[in-house]
Amino acid sequence: MFVLKKKILFLIVDGLGDRPSAILNDLTPLEYAETPTLNALAARGICGLHTTIAPGIPPGSDTAHLALFGYNPHKYYTGRGVFEAAGLGIPLQPGDIAFRTNYATIEDGIIVDRRAGRIRDDKDELARLVDGLHIDGIQAIFKHSVEHRGCLVLRGDSLSHQITSNDPKREGNPPPEIAAKEKSAEASAQVLRKLIAKVEERLQDHPLNKQRQALGKLPANTLLVRGASSAVQLPNFEERFALKGAVCVAGFALYKGAAALVGMKVLYVPGATGRVDSDLNAKIKASFEALEENNFVFLHFKGADNEGHDGNFLEKAAYLEKADKALEPVLGRDDLVFALTGDHSTPCGIRDHSADPNPLMAVSSDCLRDSVKEFGERSVIAGGLGHIRGVDVMPIIMGLANRTKKFGA
Amino acid sequence: MFVLKKKILFLIVDGLGDRPSAILNDLTPLEYAETPTLNALAARGICGLHTTIAPGIPPGSDTAHLALFGYNPHKYYTGRGVFEAAGLGIPLQPGDIAFRTNYATIEDGIIVDRRAGRIRDDKDELARLVDGLHIDGIQAIFKHSVEHRGCLVLRGDSLSHQITSNDPKREGNPPPEIAAKEKSAEASAQVLRKLIAKVEERLQDHPLNKQRQALGKLPANTLLVRGASSAVQLPNFEERFALKGAVCVAGFALYKGAAALVGMKVLYVPGATGRVDSDLNAKIKASFEALEENNFVFLHFKGADNEGHDGNFLEKAAYLEKADKALEPVLGRDDLVFALTGDHSTPCGIRDHSADPNPLMAVSSDCLRDSVKEFGERSVIAGGLGHIRGVDVMPIIMGLANRTKKFGA
Repeated sequence: MFVLKKKILFLIVDGLGDRPSAILNDLTPLEYAETPTLNALAARGICGLHTTIAPGIPPGSDTAHLALFGYNPHKYYTGRGVFEAAGLGIPLQPGDIAFRTNYATIEDGIIVDRRAGRIRDDKDELARLVDGLHIDGIQAIFKHSVEHRGCLVLRGDSLSHQITSNDPKREGNPPPEIAAKEKSAEASAQVLRKLIAKVEERLQDHPLNKQRQALGKLPANTLLVRGASSAVQLPNFEERFALKGAVCVAGFALYKGAAALVGMKVLYVPGATGRVDSDLNAKIKASFEALEENNFVFLHFKGADNEGHDGNFLEKAAYLEKADKALEPVLGRDDLVFALTGDHSTPCGIRDHSADPNPLMAVSSDCLRDSVKEFGERSVIAGGLGHIRGVDVMPIIMGLANRTKKFGA
Repeated sequence: MFVLKKKILFLIVDGLGDRPSAILNDLTPLEYAETPTLNALAARGICGLHTTIAPGIPPGSDTAHLALFGYNPHKYYTGRGVFEAAGLGIPLQPGDIAFRTNYATIEDGIIVDRRAGRIRDDKDELARLVDGLHIDGIQAIFKHSVEHRGCLVLRGDSLSHQITSNDPKREGNPPPEIAAKEKSAEASAQVLRKLIAKVEERLQDHPLNKQRQALGKLPANTLLVRGASSAVQLPNFEERFALKGAVCVAGFALYKGAAALVGMKVLYVPGATGRVDSDLNAKIKASFEALEENNFVFLHFKGADNEGHDGNFLEKAAYLEKADKALEPVLGRDDLVFALTGDHSTPCGIRDHSADPNPLMAVSSDCLRDSVKEFGERSVIAGGLGHIRGVDVMPIIMGLANRTKKFGA
């Protein structure tokens, strides 16, 4: 019997979920925003909520994406650094350890901005400050990414990722000293401490900072590192889901990294910045083009998460309206299975990830469309998908696309 | 404290769930059908949805029934053949391997009908064509079942079920050659190839086929085998649920087999054909009679699945109306716990099992009846049982019947 296998567009709106706020008339940013396209799509599809990992666990962006790709992060996650490295196209060798980094602003030993004013200066220069350094026989490989973000890889003998971070995670605190979590990691911790001291030394009177200060901007004068992890081999996504042609359209390194780690092809899309200003129309266009030759596109919108982290209620709503507008062409594609959800909630009032579940929609021309007519954290409670876990999202999408395999006879 | 333990009637309507279709005004067959009895029962009970095995997994009929009997199929399932053998009352010995079979029509090496026009000729003759053959010291045991269906058991030394099927699963293809999945199964594959060649030879000029062709019917001129499996011992259902007197009322071999494998007593009900034309009233009557002496009846209605596989939207709805009518007497039995669900969805638009969840109702005079007043795939979303997994259905029924055992003190 012939069954039409549908193509799939899976959009993750980073940090989508939120909590109600008095600033938004007791609504969430998604509820407050005018989103006629999302509502029309929800009305055509099945909705629900997912708890990305498990109740009460605020997911990291990395573990959240693993779960939404169908990989149990408790089984497959070793740390964030390797995602950053994969996203920036740094090929890892066995024994390498990798870190996510921030350029940050320190004053009198206190971190005053963990993002150095979301610095957007010369990326190559910001990379050269670290890349190629050698400390105690260990080589540093560094690529700079978007704004303050970058990825550090250490290469050499006997490295261990069992070391702590120097990121205090909050402004107003001194950076904690990097330490070994176990004896075998002491040399690695020592290398990293020396490396950061060297980078701080290079930054102290760097022309880039003089220029920033002249413009009233915060200087980048230290490097925060976190997410220490060692190289990991994940099962291939296309094999796992018997789905040839899986590609990623994302602007931001971490998500490209997550996609690359599971074997998706990562597209370069001009205008996809991984910031609030990203060209979402270009990303939709690139996704449609990719779907001509491929069967699955993972599309990622980053901006809502940024606004959540910065506590910008109205701006988060405005970004969601921008996303809604960009999604208009999806209304014309009822040949596809279209799914949309957040990887985690980033409530503006929390300014960080929370464990709150995320609204989810799955749209297919012959799905059991439910009574949900608006897409929001609370309207989807009545939806037909109910309340599920993140790792179940991909199998459900595959079922709607008629791409699943019978178990039994 | 005295608690009344209720008797249980558990009806599985095979292939119940479906998707909305334009042919049925964007309703599913169950939503489209007039089902006043189902609606009245749903209004008295608690409703919900179950995903039989796991999200995105279309269940086979065998694995689905295991799950609904409370057995995790990932743990207990070895293949379909043993279910067929049990259903047809072929006692298996250790070392036997069993297969589900189809008489089929082949023309110029291509399968033109996997079911030989749903052949209904002399069952004994169809059995004799295979039963008793000896190939390379291996004995063939064969029973014919309903329409094109049968069960083949091979008995002898060193058999292995690690062999592939010759069923292309789609018309228009040649049957793939039976092959060994591992070296130790090569002799078994060889025996099966020779057996099928021998059966084809016997069928070639068989009077049965001459008669069929004279009537313009497709000939049965080959045998397709699938679901190779070896004997398996399942924990006893009555012991598992501390429920003495569990019986099965079903017309179709596979479901009798599933019931027999877990130790249920299988009743023979005249008129229960396992086809769309089955006498459902007789099955209800037999169930009520069985409940006089027994505590649990598993009742199985097959027809909806047949109509789904054949893509008959209106006929599936009509069959559900017939089932609804047959269930009228259940309205008078509020002493029972009555539960009804599908084992899997068989959407008419797919013509195969899908991973879509199935509606579920559990009715008991003192249950927490919810707001659901109609029984359909979408109306039950608001039900009190929520969205559960197949293996949780039996324990919930047992809870409503006051037949569960406290954990703790």
